[in-house]
Amino acid sequence: MLTHTSKFRVRFNETDPLGIVWHGHYVTYLEDGREAFGEEFGISYKDIQNANLFAPIVKCTVDYKSPLRHGDWATIETIFVNNIAAKLHFTYKIFIGETLIATGETVQVFTDLKGELFLSNPPFFEEWKRKYNFL
Amino acid sequence: MLTHTSKFRVRFNETDPLGIVWHGHYVTYLEDGREAFGEEFGISYKDIQNANLFAPIVKCTVDYKSPLRHGDWATIETIFVNNIAAKLHFTYKIFIGETLIATGETVQVFTDLKGELFLSNPPFFEEWKRKYNFL
Amino acid sequence: MLTHTSKFRVRFNETDPLGIVWHGHYVTYLEDGREAFGEEFGISYKDIQNANLFAPIVKCTVDYKSPLRHGDWATIETIFVNNIAAKLHFTYKIFIGETLIATGETVQVFTDLKGELFLSNPPFFEEWKRKYNFL
Amino acid sequence: MLTHTSKFRVRFNETDPLGIVWHGHYVTYLEDGREAFGEEFGISYKDIQNANLFAPIVKCTVDYKSPLRHGDWATIETIFVNNIAAKLHFTYKIFIGETLIATGETVQVFTDLKGELFLSNPPFFEEWKRKYNFL
Repeated sequence: MLTHTSKFRVRFNETDPLGIVWHGHYVTYLEDGREAFGEEFGISYKDIQNANLFAPIVKCTVDYKSPLRHGDWATIETIFVNNIAAKLHFTYKIFIGETLIATGETVQVFTDLKGELFLSNPPFFEEWKRKYNFL
Repeated sequence: MLTHTSKFRVRFNETDPLGIVWHGHYVTYLEDGREAFGEEFGISYKDIQNANLFAPIVKCTVDYKSPLRHGDWATIETIFVNNIAAKLHFTYKIFIGETLIATGETVQVFTDLKGELFLSNPPFFEEWKRKYNFL
Repeated sequence: MLTHTSKFRVRFNETDPLGIVWHGHYVTYLEDGREAFGEEFGISYKDIQNANLFAPIVKCTVDYKSPLRHGDWATIETIFVNNIAAKLHFTYKIFIGETLIATGETVQVFTDLKGELFLSNPPFFEEWKRKYNFL
Repeated sequence: MLTHTSKFRVRFNETDPLGIVWHGHYVTYLEDGREAFGEEFGISYKDIQNANLFAPIVKCTVDYKSPLRHGDWATIETIFVNNIAAKLHFTYKIFIGETLIATGETVQVFTDLKGELFLSNPPFFEEWKRKYNFL
């Protein structure tokens, strides 16, 4: 299992009139976690584009357990979930200390630069999986 | 089944370098749909607060089928899903014309103003359900 | 003087823990006003791109007079300011009823698709100005 | 002159269809710089609220010199500008390396918790200025 952990800080403008982070901003936190994972393991947006691919999100889910507030330092774990489909699948856990704040999930597909969907793994992803022993 | 349909237009600043709406902005579209529903049927954020309640989101999901672009006029259907749990449950469909762009789902719980969770329906929600024949 | 007036409604997620619109969101309101102006008078982002031009923002100012709150209906006036420089210059006034909420100003320059700056008006803008008697 | 320098990284979702940061996001960068300054020097949003004050923004300006792109690491300098008025005045410079990307300016006033404006410095700000030899 491939995992990346990064830290982030809650901005004032991410909080709502209840004083807690507005739920939509978690999608940004997931993307930040995914990009940090991608940069460590060579599968960031830029790596994917350098392979002449796009990887649009086809599903995004967040489950909210406990609120985040302005100034909180939180940790996000981004976990690659191996999958036989031609999909990039991540799950996420956001913590403050030991407290689970939220969990999330994203699924991406691969397309070429014209937007044509790959039904099986594009070579770039096949190589990436081989490199990390997912094949 | 209680449904509200509203229209929205894609802003330039909601689109990303691929020229399509960044996936996180759909959470705003769902909230706009939910608020429009809430204003028609008396269950908006303000109605809920006037009853001394909050209704924080505990789950949010979006499934992306087809992209949105700057200037697109889209339609969002917000559908109340009746439920025996003390939860406010909506599903959403976003269309351009006949084309399904995305589906979504949100779940909210009820708390009092101190954040204490209601395990059964608060009186406000019970009355609301009765009014619309969901009980 | 060329002016466009449009209405907008304050979204829940545009408000901050003080219950008022976070100041950064006004930049979106200005852009919405400018785009509505552009669509009426043929100088929207799309019109500009169809002329093989970009018009990046080089200056943006907002002066805040009175707050906006969730659910407020506000009016934005977008005013084209004629200018001998090769610049697209707008001022803005945001009102609720008679109350002035904010004023703003943006300046855009013109570049070709490679980002090369126009030091004098590109033909598209020259024609546009002629059409509206600004030359 | 009191100055704080911090670094930030451009997120994918801050970039627009031209591949550059949408101009409105700079307001967030200024706020991040101001908050980092505030935390170093005891004049953050939280410090201000702990003194039973708010400090709403009454003016915000950005001048854009050169674009930012996804993944760029930029530096923001936040500079306190001393002022005899009862105002919190900052200027900002954003750089990549030696290249000036943008400059900015914000002005804040002080109000009590009911929103009543201070026409002269509230004691908290008077003490703060004394501490840093601005009086």
